Amino acid sequence: MRLLWRSLRGLVLHHRPHRRFLATISSTGNDQRKQQSHKWSSPGSRTERLLYAAYWAGGLALGYHWLSDGHKPLLAEAQVVPSDDEQEARARLWHITPRADLPNYKTDQVEQHNSAKTGIWITYGLGVYDVTDFADNHPGGDKILMAAGSAIDPFWAIYQQHNTLEVLELLEGFRIGNLEGVDLKPGASAAEDELGSPWAHEPQRHALLKPASKRPFNAEPPIGLLAEQFLTPNELFYVRNHLPVPVISAEEYELEIESGSSKKKDPLTLNLEEIKALPKHSVTAAIMCGGNRRSEMTKVKAVKGLSWGAGAVGNAKWSGARLCDVLREQGVQPDESKHVIFEGADLDPTSHPYGASIPLSKALDPRGDVILAYEMNGETLSRDHGYPIRVIVPGTVGARNVKWLTRIVVADKESDSHWQQNDYKGFSPSTDWDTVDFSKSDAIQAMPVTSAICTPQPGARVKPDDDDGHITVRGYAWSGGGRKIVRVDLTSDEGKSWHVAELEQEDSPDGRHYGWSLWTARLPISESSGSDVEIWAKAVDSAYNVQPEKFEHIWNLRGVLANAYHKVRVKIA
Amino acid sequence: MRLLWRSLRGLVLHHRPHRRFLATISSTGNDQRKQQSHKWSSPGSRTERLLYAAYWAGGLALGYHWLSDGHKPLLAEAQVVPSDDEQEARARLWHITPRADLPNYKTDQVEQHNSAKTGIWITYGLGVYDVTDFADNHPGGDKILMAAGSAIDPFWAIYQQHNTLEVLELLEGFRIGNLEGVDLKPGASAAEDELGSPWAHEPQRHALLKPASKRPFNAEPPIGLLAEQFLTPNELFYVRNHLPVPVISAEEYELEIESGSSKKKDPLTLNLEEIKALPKHSVTAAIMCGGNRRSEMTKVKAVKGLSWGAGAVGNAKWSGARLCDVLREQGVQPDESKHVIFEGADLDPTSHPYGASIPLSKALDPRGDVILAYEMNGETLSRDHGYPIRVIVPGTVGARNVKWLTRIVVADKESDSHWQQNDYKGFSPSTDWDTVDFSKSDAIQAMPVTSAICTPQPGARVKPDDDDGHITVRGYAWSGGGRKIVRVDLTSDEGKSWHVAELEQEDSPDGRHYGWSLWTARLPISESSGSDVEIWAKAVDSAYNVQPEKFEHIWNLRGVLANAYHKVRVKIA
Repeated sequence: MRLLWRSLRGLVLHHRPHRRFLATISSTGNDQRKQQSHKWSSPGSRTERLLYAAYWAGGLALGYHWLSDGHKPLLAEAQVVPSDDEQEARARLWHITPRADLPNYKTDQVEQHNSAKTGIWITYGLGVYDVTDFADNHPGGDKILMAAGSAIDPFWAIYQQHNTLEVLELLEGFRIGNLEGVDLKPGASAAEDELGSPWAHEPQRHALLKPASKRPFNAEPPIGLLAEQFLTPNELFYVRNHLPVPVISAEEYELEIESGSSKKKDPLTLNLEEIKALPKHSVTAAIMCGGNRRSEMTKVKAVKGLSWGAGAVGNAKWSGARLCDVLREQGVQPDESKHVIFEGADLDPTSHPYGASIPLSKALDPRGDVILAYEMNGETLSRDHGYPIRVIVPGTVGARNVKWLTRIVVADKESDSHWQQNDYKGFSPSTDWDTVDFSKSDAIQAMPVTSAICTPQPGARVKPDDDDGHITVRGYAWSGGGRKIVRVDLTSDEGKSWHVAELEQEDSPDGRHYGWSLWTARLPISESSGSDVEIWAKAVDSAYNVQPEKFEHIWNLRGVLANAYHKVRVKIA
Repeated sequence: MRLLWRSLRGLVLHHRPHRRFLATISSTGNDQRKQQSHKWSSPGSRTERLLYAAYWAGGLALGYHWLSDGHKPLLAEAQVVPSDDEQEARARLWHITPRADLPNYKTDQVEQHNSAKTGIWITYGLGVYDVTDFADNHPGGDKILMAAGSAIDPFWAIYQQHNTLEVLELLEGFRIGNLEGVDLKPGASAAEDELGSPWAHEPQRHALLKPASKRPFNAEPPIGLLAEQFLTPNELFYVRNHLPVPVISAEEYELEIESGSSKKKDPLTLNLEEIKALPKHSVTAAIMCGGNRRSEMTKVKAVKGLSWGAGAVGNAKWSGARLCDVLREQGVQPDESKHVIFEGADLDPTSHPYGASIPLSKALDPRGDVILAYEMNGETLSRDHGYPIRVIVPGTVGARNVKWLTRIVVADKESDSHWQQNDYKGFSPSTDWDTVDFSKSDAIQAMPVTSAICTPQPGARVKPDDDDGHITVRGYAWSGGGRKIVRVDLTSDEGKSWHVAELEQEDSPDGRHYGWSLWTARLPISESSGSDVEIWAKAVDSAYNVQPEKFEHIWNLRGVLANAYHKVRVKIA
């Protein structure tokens, strides 16, 4: 059995099946390629496949550890009246010291206290704290809500101003209990995990990325941080993985391009050095998950999918070779009926690669800015974002921006992958799982206009400016297809009056605004507004498309395209 | 006097000023061109200009006729308290009615009051007004100074927002006298009109075209006919003219193209034969007025503009030369910051041509399908649709599809015409005429997704099908920018259940669906529906943009971009 695991691990992690797959297809006929390669690269017998799948299940059941790392008690009791320094040194140990006078809580109990309504609990080390009454007075405003129901440790690692005796004493005053160690399920699985699961080689992630799922890893940054920088820091950029992250070495990496050209060598194989030797092109592009803001749509009626907040989007400057240069060099001619299929090195339990496609017209258009990216914000692409090559398809739903890109095929049809055919499509609100026919709906490509309020956050207590009674609201807006954001309107009185936000956007040319826009608005708050105010944001793009008002009439069973007005209710202090 | 009228008529109608203007500029420096041409093409002396303007006033007075038709008696006093309509009809006669309580002035007396220093007098019809104190508060800014000392009639003919009771009452408040020697009585003017007014050579129109205004001619077909054919019959295609229709002969016609290229002969002049000799390209494209469906938006709050129904759109197959071929042949290189300016042969009272511009990227893109069209549905372009050449800019608001095209300029800036700069732009619902700043808003180019129910019509009595209790609903849907319609949803229960329509659309490739889609849906009508049912239609385009639900939150002071759900209330028989 161990041997089987090891060989499966080899299949998944070392990218060899795909390399051999590439080698195989390069010498076989077109129609048989897919089938042949799948036969080759999946475990041979039905039993083997079952075991492989079972292994996946085991991996999925494993918990997530970073919270519990470093939560071991380290402390001895102090015996004498301490000096200030000693007092501070001791205070620094409180949060990693269990208190016998307080009850123990499990993480899921803490998680349930994540709003003003349920009470706001947070953890720090193994301390559990009820900060419901403090949240409104938090000097950092509603940022504290980003940690509601979870750990403040990663935030304090960034906001070092918390590291004072005064703050530590304040915090300990809110202590209500101790966090129990994370209960890892079968010890055996944990051991296996270390040895050879498909998940064993997942990269380290920033502690601030909040997972919507851990395996595969899907996580978004706290939305309160999202509008702080025009270019999202790489480590805070949302991660949407469909499968385990493959391990690919720069030396071994190869990209196969099957252009269908009869004029040139076809398929063409490029290694990393060859891709980097092509003219380097940079484009600022936001990438957004098709399911961004799904958690809002779910409130109308349940949908199937990861419960993303509004943080499944990021904006980066991507650099690499232009796909249109490569395809044109191969002799590919414009053809409106054709598609370009992308395959990743990430394999599903049946050894099918992740796949997606885009229209050939997008790939060939120099203004389409499709690139084989090896850099993100000037740094080498990280493993979570597709090292060594990710295809960036600006203005197009994240799912088509295939990571760990290993194969490109110019084809008469769209990719036949699950994610192209039976996912990432929109439907009428009355289509349910009994009536849905995925073949009748168009695969999402360019995304519709959307926006989100990043600060203040829901439930925050906001104090209007003393001078003029305004509150400041900040967020992002974006539209697909290169359409520029031309206006963002805000209201705090359900649309009776609208206020136009100031836009911060790349001063790039008409028609290809692939980057997002950040915006800031100042909303007047009058006494008649009352103590509860709901802020609405709606964006308008350069085709003057607007967001729909609410989710009821755009609801769809997969919870994609959730672009209704973003509405945030806050308390006026 | 008659001679002068004739010569003025020649200036406006026979397109000679423009032709000579073109000849002039082709041999002069860039900066001086506009000025020079205007000096040339307007009547020379101030007196001539005044007479020219007065002539327009005559035409305008007649134009008002249709409004007052049916509001008889025309000049007799009403004996009872008038209705709002009657009051407005009477107000429309004030400026052509001498007031015995005020003195008479000669035109040269008016002329002397042409600045803040001398006082600002204007005339309208035979009314003389002192607007010195008002000029600073004029919503249109200092444009009012263009008429200082002379007639506002020609300006109001263009800037139709003045055509309201409120404005007429305001103006009459500034009345100080009557203009001598101007005979504006309907009968006399009518005779003049036949002889030499700018409107004397308007083409015959189909009786089914319902005018929203007659001078300039703006009319739409009955919406019930609109969805009958995929290609709208030419004679039923809506007409949106901003100025009188110019008279242009095929022999005299010339198109000047100023590409800024240093490599080729520049400007290039093409006659009609030369354009027809270029490769012929056809594209099916819907053209839609920016104000289509304005009459629905007006119900929320009044807007300024022609009261279009949902028929200010048509779908045709246009044929002509591709602009990208001409520009590339001239050596024009892609430049994201540049624009292409179009000028028509239709001239405003100051002899400025109608003008508009589009981004150069759209003009150069082979998939942009911009053509210099001489055929519409296989027939020679009619005069109302731009004979001999109209630029067709598929997917882009009608206003940029310039008719009677005489000049193309590749430029660093957008057209400085009124229609590009101070019209056809969107604004926030809270922007009003006191706060509007047209320079802050983007000119409409690609249009947002929309749809309309063509049958049944509002108030119709509809009998559900005997077999299954359904009613049949039919209409059109369209989105700008070449985005395909991917779905049209219908509901008869305010969105509790939605029904997907069958689409009829050109089987053309992804990404450039410039033609509209017709659709048919069958809606179940249950007994609980009651005898009154409101049908809603909403379309979704290939970027999954959807129509907004209602007009309240997209309202804008010009009443453009009116693309909320189309709602039609019918009676169930």
